[in-house]
Amino acid sequence: MAGSIYGKLFTVTTWGESHGKGLGVVIDGCPAGIALSEEDIQIYLDRRKPGQNKFTTKRNEGDKVSILSGVFEGKTTGTPISLVVMNEDQKSKDYGSIAESYRPGHADYCFDEKYGFRDYRGGGRSSGRETIGRVAAGAVAAKVLKELGITLTAYTRAIGTIKVADDAIDLNMVNQNPLYMPNNTCAADAAAYLNEMMEKKDSVGSMVECIITGVPVGVGEPVFDKLDARLAQAVMSIGAVKAIEIGDGTAVVSSIGSDNNDNFYMDGDTVKKRTNHSGGTLGGMSDGSPILIRASFKPTPSIFQAQDTVTRAHEEIVMEIKGRHDPIIGPRAVVVVESMCAITVLDLLMQNATAKLDNLKRIYRS
Amino acid sequence: MAGSIYGKLFTVTTWGESHGKGLGVVIDGCPAGIALSEEDIQIYLDRRKPGQNKFTTKRNEGDKVSILSGVFEGKTTGTPISLVVMNEDQKSKDYGSIAESYRPGHADYCFDEKYGFRDYRGGGRSSGRETIGRVAAGAVAAKVLKELGITLTAYTRAIGTIKVADDAIDLNMVNQNPLYMPNNTCAADAAAYLNEMMEKKDSVGSMVECIITGVPVGVGEPVFDKLDARLAQAVMSIGAVKAIEIGDGTAVVSSIGSDNNDNFYMDGDTVKKRTNHSGGTLGGMSDGSPILIRASFKPTPSIFQAQDTVTRAHEEIVMEIKGRHDPIIGPRAVVVVESMCAITVLDLLMQNATAKLDNLKRIYRS
Amino acid sequence: MAGSIYGKLFTVTTWGESHGKGLGVVIDGCPAGIALSEEDIQIYLDRRKPGQNKFTTKRNEGDKVSILSGVFEGKTTGTPISLVVMNEDQKSKDYGSIAESYRPGHADYCFDEKYGFRDYRGGGRSSGRETIGRVAAGAVAAKVLKELGITLTAYTRAIGTIKVADDAIDLNMVNQNPLYMPNNTCAADAAAYLNEMMEKKDSVGSMVECIITGVPVGVGEPVFDKLDARLAQAVMSIGAVKAIEIGDGTAVVSSIGSDNNDNFYMDGDTVKKRTNHSGGTLGGMSDGSPILIRASFKPTPSIFQAQDTVTRAHEEIVMEIKGRHDPIIGPRAVVVVESMCAITVLDLLMQNATAKLDNLKRIYRS
Amino acid sequence: MAGSIYGKLFTVTTWGESHGKGLGVVIDGCPAGIALSEEDIQIYLDRRKPGQNKFTTKRNEGDKVSILSGVFEGKTTGTPISLVVMNEDQKSKDYGSIAESYRPGHADYCFDEKYGFRDYRGGGRSSGRETIGRVAAGAVAAKVLKELGITLTAYTRAIGTIKVADDAIDLNMVNQNPLYMPNNTCAADAAAYLNEMMEKKDSVGSMVECIITGVPVGVGEPVFDKLDARLAQAVMSIGAVKAIEIGDGTAVVSSIGSDNNDNFYMDGDTVKKRTNHSGGTLGGMSDGSPILIRASFKPTPSIFQAQDTVTRAHEEIVMEIKGRHDPIIGPRAVVVVESMCAITVLDLLMQNATAKLDNLKRIYRS
Repeated sequence: MAGSIYGKLFTVTTWGESHGKGLGVVIDGCPAGIALSEEDIQIYLDRRKPGQNKFTTKRNEGDKVSILSGVFEGKTTGTPISLVVMNEDQKSKDYGSIAESYRPGHADYCFDEKYGFRDYRGGGRSSGRETIGRVAAGAVAAKVLKELGITLTAYTRAIGTIKVADDAIDLNMVNQNPLYMPNNTCAADAAAYLNEMMEKKDSVGSMVECIITGVPVGVGEPVFDKLDARLAQAVMSIGAVKAIEIGDGTAVVSSIGSDNNDNFYMDGDTVKKRTNHSGGTLGGMSDGSPILIRASFKPTPSIFQAQDTVTRAHEEIVMEIKGRHDPIIGPRAVVVVESMCAITVLDLLMQNATAKLDNLKRIYRS
Repeated sequence: MAGSIYGKLFTVTTWGESHGKGLGVVIDGCPAGIALSEEDIQIYLDRRKPGQNKFTTKRNEGDKVSILSGVFEGKTTGTPISLVVMNEDQKSKDYGSIAESYRPGHADYCFDEKYGFRDYRGGGRSSGRETIGRVAAGAVAAKVLKELGITLTAYTRAIGTIKVADDAIDLNMVNQNPLYMPNNTCAADAAAYLNEMMEKKDSVGSMVECIITGVPVGVGEPVFDKLDARLAQAVMSIGAVKAIEIGDGTAVVSSIGSDNNDNFYMDGDTVKKRTNHSGGTLGGMSDGSPILIRASFKPTPSIFQAQDTVTRAHEEIVMEIKGRHDPIIGPRAVVVVESMCAITVLDLLMQNATAKLDNLKRIYRS
Repeated sequence: MAGSIYGKLFTVTTWGESHGKGLGVVIDGCPAGIALSEEDIQIYLDRRKPGQNKFTTKRNEGDKVSILSGVFEGKTTGTPISLVVMNEDQKSKDYGSIAESYRPGHADYCFDEKYGFRDYRGGGRSSGRETIGRVAAGAVAAKVLKELGITLTAYTRAIGTIKVADDAIDLNMVNQNPLYMPNNTCAADAAAYLNEMMEKKDSVGSMVECIITGVPVGVGEPVFDKLDARLAQAVMSIGAVKAIEIGDGTAVVSSIGSDNNDNFYMDGDTVKKRTNHSGGTLGGMSDGSPILIRASFKPTPSIFQAQDTVTRAHEEIVMEIKGRHDPIIGPRAVVVVESMCAITVLDLLMQNATAKLDNLKRIYRS
Repeated sequence: MAGSIYGKLFTVTTWGESHGKGLGVVIDGCPAGIALSEEDIQIYLDRRKPGQNKFTTKRNEGDKVSILSGVFEGKTTGTPISLVVMNEDQKSKDYGSIAESYRPGHADYCFDEKYGFRDYRGGGRSSGRETIGRVAAGAVAAKVLKELGITLTAYTRAIGTIKVADDAIDLNMVNQNPLYMPNNTCAADAAAYLNEMMEKKDSVGSMVECIITGVPVGVGEPVFDKLDARLAQAVMSIGAVKAIEIGDGTAVVSSIGSDNNDNFYMDGDTVKKRTNHSGGTLGGMSDGSPILIRASFKPTPSIFQAQDTVTRAHEEIVMEIKGRHDPIIGPRAVVVVESMCAITVLDLLMQNATAKLDNLKRIYRS
């Protein structure tokens, strides 16, 4: 598979380019019997929709989703679910300079070398709009997980040097500010910093964090398909992500075993951990604690300053990028991170359903 | 697949438990015509072998590999390559306490919940010995890559707070010290720190870095199978890894676009980047620069201090771990990181071979 | 994957129900640089289109295909190709009896047991219209194969007891009769037989054969992914197929080695076989001879006679099926068989491109 | 995957050549908690063991299996099960003529073209011994299925023109004759025919049939992973198989709908079919009736008559094959067919476990 297919049991196939006729996803393997409406999916898509505040592009897409298959009388049938968003806003324009040059920090050069040519319109397949299919599928996965008592919450943990401290996180605030930060004061500081950088025609980096609760113990496969390994691929596959951390992440390097180990204790009949340095996984399997994953996003590569680069014809030039570009990626990627985590957890949870004979007997012998 | 199979074209299936009869790997899809001997593989296995210095366990395994199939007259035949290392050192001992208790920082509890019971001998499938199969396969992948001009070099970048600075890295020193650090002075400081922690019956964290050079432009698939995403899964799937960074990694959060973008220029007829903040990938495809990946390893969970935990019978206890345990994971994992990177790069390089019609014509019409 | 995804490198994901909003396919892994237009695909879809003669349903679908992604400036880009056919003809009608009863020879009962309920409109996912996605993808695969000198030709070999003899096959006649038989006289006899059975409100069985020429030697993987094994899955996965034969097929049971073996000889510098009992494969790999595969289709299960069956409520009833149903499946399935063979051959041909080091060197070192 | 890996959840990876050091299989995804011993597997291997009667080769292999991983305290642990059979009988001999020539009906020529060279010893990877891994895995799959009330029985249905009639099948007789036919009279006639052909230095074709009972309704995925399609790939992937039939198989071509449809009726509370022309599948899903599959095996290609062929150097020669070769393939393949069916049914049964939300709730919410 050439990399637009993800998941083994809950399998997601995305398609579409930024300025093509549309974008979408086909979900194969969604369990039958889930109540699903276009509204369920639209809510997620609207979270990534552009043009909602001064920090996002002015492009006004309706980004309305249609369910073309796999749902009957309001419930999933178990057959493939095809979700499509048609592109409304395809103003024909001159792509000349982008078509013939390689934007720094973008994949233009790699596409030409790999495929021989590329769809240069708005970044083609590498556009942020590619995530529409991921988010539509994530909305479905989250709906299934919710039926099993599993919830996911993502937010912008840091913008530039402004980071929300562990004890300052208030999940209720995430949707109270346009930057989806779990702290309104930090969000205000970040907004000021963003304005400053926008005036300088520059862009900034950010960090997105996702908390997953309610995952039963044992989800994830030892060895290659560890829950954290699969989450790492899933979230690192989002454009502009340069680092993935689980639990304490990079901080473990300077930690010691006696601090880093999470001691077990009994909470009534339930095994629990006194701390959660592990971020909810042990040996690649969920350990019953909240699963904590962080992604570091590079600054938006499209900036409005003059930049040195080269052309397809291998001439050195100075180029200035025009058009619509967010000065930061994280806030709009919050729902994408949440979606990729939902798809991954559901996929591994479905696989885990066949881990022992008792489970098969529960389904086939009762 | 229940997670012991990795790769789509160069497919690696590992098997074996710490104290079972043996461990090994089957490689399916290795191209035919590669010169391959048991020595080629033994060299890699010896790099992860225990008992080589005071910082590694005293277990004396020969860890001698046998090639059971897929090689004829010294060359790979294109059929599956089965590599086996039999366990020599299985001293029967009393596993009672480990069998009945959940070691903090280990997967014991998760295994019991997932499968109903577990092979508790030496960590079973979650033992560091599981990596024998990975390293054996990595040796083969590295041999294929070498034929294509691609090389991989991994080393211990940091131990605790002792980190080798960018300008202090000397790859010639990596094999001059038992900690595989690219700087002998740092290695000496780290050794002193390790001794101190061992006296305190504690363990320490570490960071391993891998540089991959010679990868042609365009390797890696846009969207889910990005080169960096697949490397993230591959390396995060190594036990005890809690973070993966590509290029500048987490530092991109506090960076700005005008600094983070790598400008293109012409070096003769070749497109090059003036800097390599991206770590050798753009849009998930190799960009021709060295690929740089870092992994953060948590401190060894097995420490000799008394720790609070619970039993299978859900009683709270204080346990003391006995036996042989390294105080640090990174140095012995250096070759494992290198191996997982080699397998991943080869797998995606093989997939990339069919990316355009011209390639197929070059093979089938010439 | 829940079975709507096929292929490993040229990967096809189909979706859609008979009376849903539409049907389609996403192709992931199509090589870049292939000239592709909607006309290329429409030609294939029109071959399976209903309402073209008295032996096919009266349903008048335009079945017009749209390319929504993966093609830019007339050529495939290497990114996913999304092909959609919207359903025009969804006359709302009373499905009461079909909704509540299990049609003999249909999957109604199995769907209810597997998923808990089903989309009963026109057979839902099990409708013949499901093949629209297969044929659209097959058209693309055939276009790629044509660039490599590979052609596929399918036709109706037999209808009821009327079978075209080996020496009576004239491929020029295939498109000269509405039953796609390679012999107009047989086609006339078959048409008479069909009329007779239609008057009796009955249906008939048929056999479809496909010849594939120009496949280079060595395509197909030893063991599980043999070329013939993969073709068997691909063609058996078409609704109503009950048998697959390669070369001499079932006749080998009563043959002897000295007759069945195909002797090799030299035709100039080329190794050839004097006979082709093997049907173009040896040990699961293409042997350079034409590949010959046959599929046996059961009679259309929807007949207009009264039939005994049961309801969802488990009551025995006599049901009479109404509506539009072909009295035979083979002729309209000719293009579906051809499509599944094209997808399979291309998928294995792409995989074979990495079979030996020399091939990789030809792509990466030249 | 280069074709030595089969299955999506119960995944089987086979390896080994006829005259290499050994052969084996790794099973990934076997549910935990199954009682499993080497004896369980040896019983299956012994059924395919050569040297048991005058119709099989004189090669005396012990073919003793060892379980190297995945079983602890007599039960499967859920981790990979590695099964190995070492080759005892590797008498060094002169393979000169086979090494330099292409045997008619064998894959020698295709291997050379695909990989550039081949392991010519005893057919290498294409030897019948390759099935050792399949049968070892099949024994494990059958043990799991037995726990769920599913049984498989295969036998030789026909040898040459001697076919056991439907009403003459007595499953009790299958193990009463060396040809594994379900009728001792037919077996005696077949033995006489075999003797006659052996005197003529010739070989004969055969047909193997497998009956699977107890499969719950709904196993198998609509579209590409239909139960019958996957069985077709699995059984067609066995060397020398040229045709696969489900239920009435090729006979459906000359049948009519009113005869071919199986009418439903109520047997108490259970939905049943009055006939089983479908062979236990409808729309690619199990329908509750016994699953019936037939495979046609070509005559053994290795015969002792002089045959025309060519050399690697492209010279035409007359060759005479020496050594040990069965005059018929079917009887020894009976257990191989049974094994491939067991692996396939279990794999799809595990996948079906996640088909609906109710199943997931039964596992995760109870």
